Amino acid sequence: MILVNGIQSEHVRVSDRGLSYGDGVFRTLLVREYRPLCWPRHYDKLYADCAALDIVCPAEAILAEEMAKLIAGTPDCVLKVIVTRGESQRGYAIPEHIEPTRILMASPVPQYPASYLTDGVRLHLCSTRLANQPLLAGIKHLNRLENVLARREWNTSEIAEGLMLDMEGNAIEGTMSNLFLLQGKTLHTPDLGRCGVAGVQRERIMDLAGRLGMTVRVENLPLARIYDADELVLCNSIIGVWQARELAGKIWPTGKLAARLRSLLDDDGH
Amino acid sequence: MILVNGIQSEHVRVSDRGLSYGDGVFRTLLVREYRPLCWPRHYDKLYADCAALDIVCPAEAILAEEMAKLIAGTPDCVLKVIVTRGESQRGYAIPEHIEPTRILMASPVPQYPASYLTDGVRLHLCSTRLANQPLLAGIKHLNRLENVLARREWNTSEIAEGLMLDMEGNAIEGTMSNLFLLQGKTLHTPDLGRCGVAGVQRERIMDLAGRLGMTVRVENLPLARIYDADELVLCNSIIGVWQARELAGKIWPTGKLAARLRSLLDDDGH
Repeated sequence: MILVNGIQSEHVRVSDRGLSYGDGVFRTLLVREYRPLCWPRHYDKLYADCAALDIVCPAEAILAEEMAKLIAGTPDCVLKVIVTRGESQRGYAIPEHIEPTRILMASPVPQYPASYLTDGVRLHLCSTRLANQPLLAGIKHLNRLENVLARREWNTSEIAEGLMLDMEGNAIEGTMSNLFLLQGKTLHTPDLGRCGVAGVQRERIMDLAGRLGMTVRVENLPLARIYDADELVLCNSIIGVWQARELAGKIWPTGKLAARLRSLLDDDGH
Repeated sequence: MILVNGIQSEHVRVSDRGLSYGDGVFRTLLVREYRPLCWPRHYDKLYADCAALDIVCPAEAILAEEMAKLIAGTPDCVLKVIVTRGESQRGYAIPEHIEPTRILMASPVPQYPASYLTDGVRLHLCSTRLANQPLLAGIKHLNRLENVLARREWNTSEIAEGLMLDMEGNAIEGTMSNLFLLQGKTLHTPDLGRCGVAGVQRERIMDLAGRLGMTVRVENLPLARIYDADELVLCNSIIGVWQARELAGKIWPTGKLAARLRSLLDDDGH
């Protein structure tokens, strides 16, 4: 089911700037037993991303009402929320009066191999690099061609995710996930000030890691730091946390970080 | 009028990757007296841009037939052609079988102030910089948030266009146009190997400049080279060629380059 501005529809107008220019943002979250998990955090991030692009974010109450309508028919699903700047005539200029478009869609929860959780995952090292663009960094906007190109680099379920670097060779993120590495008792996660998407699951882990006696450092992480890590994990709101087992020949011993973080996140509730 | 896959419609499906990820390319060209100007060049560029993203470009005959249908009702218009990778389920992975979406739309020809042609134009120096991404450079793809942000920087018809730099401070293009500067008898235009859109009008000028006794050099053009130029012009398929009169305090004496290039392009036909 899809709701476009609250009305059931599978279509948006061709004049929507989401199509013309990728002029919008989105969120992807899990719905379990009728509950959109971590919705307040997702809404906060949606609001912040809209603000960063000067898009008027729909009120929380409106989205909540439409979510309830959508979820009524699909109690367990992936919920995607897209907010575009709205419709305009041809041209980059933004009209003075423009109403954002909101799109809510429910998709099946992806079924990953059970081994992803029990044995960890194999990663591809993407040759597609992320461009440095501080004005867009961190925002989950609709300009995602880099991710599309990176995801095209492998085509086997043996590989669960791809690691993306920036132009200087710093590890930034997975194509659809954020990353943390463990070194001793410190969790390190890439600085996303120049590229990458700052996800909600990453934010939760940063907030909660103290409970595991870990400190979190946000910094540049050259690829060598990844290979040297005691453990490496990937996270997002749909997959939860995956333990990295292999990356471009490097094999990590069986680790516990992903399981510990999953447990931490579960205990925190949603 | 809008044709989506040959059928009159104002809508595309929400599942179209053009909306989800900006996973597509486009062209904008002028239709005069039922003739889409420079269509063979535009199709070649559309095809090349599709190929660069591994999108299957619709056959020229199909687009030509649909263009004819569209143009029948609007003999003078701006024609925009969008080709997206097509529809898919949620996620960056591209399904094995996917049909590109083609969208053709006619818009009114913009009416710019007459002074733009007689006196030249005033330019804004954009603070929004273009990120270096060699994999996407030159392609007119649907990831255009940088252009949207740059175009937001001014809101007066006193300013006709904005000049965009890359992260190193090289002049790259206008928000919707390419640029040439004249120094002596040499036309210089920015190297678009790391960012920017390589437009059809730019290509035509590069091909034809020899007829004016000019040589063309493609190279890095730091902003200082712009200020030092004898003349500066901007071009695209809709505006033709505009003479720059002013940029961030720098004022050029009345120049002839734009008029000469317009005449050159007119003589060449379409």
